[in-house]
Amino acid sequence: MLDQVSKTKDATIAEVMADLGRRAKAAARILSTTPSAVKNRALAAMAASIRAHGDTILRANAADVARMRAGRTSKALLDRGTLTAERIEAMARGIEDIAGLDDPVGAVIAAWDRPNGLRIERVRTPLGVIGIIYESRPNVTADAGALCLKSGNAAVLRGGSDTHESAAAIHSCLVDGLKQAGLPEAAIQLVPTRDREAVGLMLSGLNGNVDVIVPRGGRGLVERVQAEARVPVFAHLEGVCHIFIDRRADLEMAASIVVDAKMRRTGICGAAETILVDRHCAGAQLEPLVEALLAAGCEVRGDAAACAVSTAVIPARPDDWGREFLDAIIAVKVVDDLPAAIEHIATHGSNHTDAIITDDAEAAETFLNEVDSAIVMHNASTQFADGGEFGMGAEIGIATGKMHARGPVGVEQLTSFKYKVRGDGQIRS
Amino acid sequence: MLDQVSKTKDATIAEVMADLGRRAKAAARILSTTPSAVKNRALAAMAASIRAHGDTILRANAADVARMRAGRTSKALLDRGTLTAERIEAMARGIEDIAGLDDPVGAVIAAWDRPNGLRIERVRTPLGVIGIIYESRPNVTADAGALCLKSGNAAVLRGGSDTHESAAAIHSCLVDGLKQAGLPEAAIQLVPTRDREAVGLMLSGLNGNVDVIVPRGGRGLVERVQAEARVPVFAHLEGVCHIFIDRRADLEMAASIVVDAKMRRTGICGAAETILVDRHCAGAQLEPLVEALLAAGCEVRGDAAACAVSTAVIPARPDDWGREFLDAIIAVKVVDDLPAAIEHIATHGSNHTDAIITDDAEAAETFLNEVDSAIVMHNASTQFADGGEFGMGAEIGIATGKMHARGPVGVEQLTSFKYKVRGDGQIRS
Repeated sequence: MLDQVSKTKDATIAEVMADLGRRAKAAARILSTTPSAVKNRALAAMAASIRAHGDTILRANAADVARMRAGRTSKALLDRGTLTAERIEAMARGIEDIAGLDDPVGAVIAAWDRPNGLRIERVRTPLGVIGIIYESRPNVTADAGALCLKSGNAAVLRGGSDTHESAAAIHSCLVDGLKQAGLPEAAIQLVPTRDREAVGLMLSGLNGNVDVIVPRGGRGLVERVQAEARVPVFAHLEGVCHIFIDRRADLEMAASIVVDAKMRRTGICGAAETILVDRHCAGAQLEPLVEALLAAGCEVRGDAAACAVSTAVIPARPDDWGREFLDAIIAVKVVDDLPAAIEHIATHGSNHTDAIITDDAEAAETFLNEVDSAIVMHNASTQFADGGEFGMGAEIGIATGKMHARGPVGVEQLTSFKYKVRGDGQIRS
Repeated sequence: MLDQVSKTKDATIAEVMADLGRRAKAAARILSTTPSAVKNRALAAMAASIRAHGDTILRANAADVARMRAGRTSKALLDRGTLTAERIEAMARGIEDIAGLDDPVGAVIAAWDRPNGLRIERVRTPLGVIGIIYESRPNVTADAGALCLKSGNAAVLRGGSDTHESAAAIHSCLVDGLKQAGLPEAAIQLVPTRDREAVGLMLSGLNGNVDVIVPRGGRGLVERVQAEARVPVFAHLEGVCHIFIDRRADLEMAASIVVDAKMRRTGICGAAETILVDRHCAGAQLEPLVEALLAAGCEVRGDAAACAVSTAVIPARPDDWGREFLDAIIAVKVVDDLPAAIEHIATHGSNHTDAIITDDAEAAETFLNEVDSAIVMHNASTQFADGGEFGMGAEIGIATGKMHARGPVGVEQLTSFKYKVRGDGQIRS
């Protein structure tokens, strides 16, 4: 199937994708009223099938990895694309965890009675068809497919071309699970071609059959999706997280949080990229903070004040403010006060996650209210910006837009709602 | 200002609109943390200013109406565009009602604690800048401006060119109110040109400065907005509301609801356009339902079964199913059963508001669950599809999309949210 399609001309890809969209929409209608127990049965069967077919998945992955090596893929991409027995078990467990979440569909979000006796309920409903476009991590196939199913949505998955065979092997385990629960195979479809034309067609919405697109990948992918999509997108372009060390910060806490927020994992969107230090405490705190970062193996790029505390600090260039290093590099700057910090974040931030360290409750409230980011934190590491850490279960990503989903996108964020109105004959005349 | 701008070339309109967008964004930042009391003071001052300048508004409106008459505007448009002392008083009272609503901004939607001691709150925030594009009703200027202010958003209003002078007169009363409360004038801006180029610029998002567009008007306007907008849109294209008369419907209730749902006001989006009658009760109910509609002065277009009950019934053409008549005309059809009714609505409906009349609780639940509309009703008139009737206060419109807002769009639906995370030094390592 894969090779057939990828060798044919565009018209055929357009036809394949249009058909895939129609079948996704039809499946979504069935999923919208599928009972929780049936969805959970499918999820359990998916996890079992992944475990049972571990060897098949590893063989498919070995073929992908061999191709990537031959193509001189970078070490980071190779690592992301490589599956192991542990990673396969983690995928199966991840699906079981999703099965264990509360079913958001049908949940009554609000209910009230009107003076005329009408009873109004706002009830969660699925969104419909969710298109997920991802890059090298083949395990996204399992995570995203399971999250969409749990939330009653059909999924159209477009994995990275580097790991297409791995994704296809995982996908057939998901289809196994769907079939065992009597659900339509089209509930989770994998785009059967490596051709990039397919991505453009998904972004166009497949004739109104895709309701939302979730890109999972680097800046290049997300930028393309945001620029071209004709349907809503849940995404963040980058996570330029700031930490402001207020004049009333506890130094020990500040150093511990700053080092964790940057160095625990440097490549995630919740990693800190810029430290802003209040001028009023810079004399006491700037040097120990910079030294703590240097001691942890972090490159520090500083303004004049930060450069003055250590010869190891590299002068920051203008474009280091607001840069997502995604590496053991951080920018450090002294600002006049809290309003200057908020202004710096408004100018250079990415509306993802920003934190203040302070013992001053009032300063904290001002920061939490005025910084316009999906997640604002007081005295905690920005690396907590994660659906699992929020207790929301698995997430399909973090969104920085203000429409519909914001912050971690879990099963609840993959739903819409409807109003159910119950009367006993009310007319308006 | 108006004439100056409308006579200059496109480049200048682009500059005027770009500047307007920048000022709106700056005002939105201030409004996002403006206390409720200040917003309510502005709203009260706006209402007072509208009352104080009633004569000025009426004079401006007389000039608009004279131009419309000279241009042979239709009677319906003329009626919508004409202001009276009563309509002006209603505008002022409407603003006061909005002042009386709870402030959605800052409301804690959800809050929970994590095992590591982190306290997480999901808190309502404004969306930012809302662009409202409307047609002939100048009172939308006041409603929309007040709703946006209450919800902490900046408004960019683009009224109909027919009633621009009336809108400008109302708008200066709103600016009066903003100034009296010390709020930026750019919190509510009226596009100062009749040039249609301005609409295109708003739909492009004014360089990222417009967060959402709300069109208020007929199908032509909404279609253009949905096709061209590069930012999210809260709207419905049409309200093709269905009423299904189930086999276990109470005939008296069915007749009363059907006549109300069609005839109370025929030109609103919640007016019923199609009646579906279960074949199992058609023998007993079809004739009295059709007779009740005919007696109420409604034209009935029916399938063969409906045509058989009265010579006054006109045979329906295929495009009468799913047509929004917006007039005293209704389509009537017999369907096999509940699933057939749901299928008909899925094919011909507009996802706005649909109702079932039945004494069978199970059939009602099936209908409410399976019909994919913003509002689904049991034993009530579709004309209740209205923010005021829902107890949500004023609404800026009704949305049929599934993203963000669905159903009546009131002050809560004009908000987003952020996560506030409070810790005492938590790190993730």
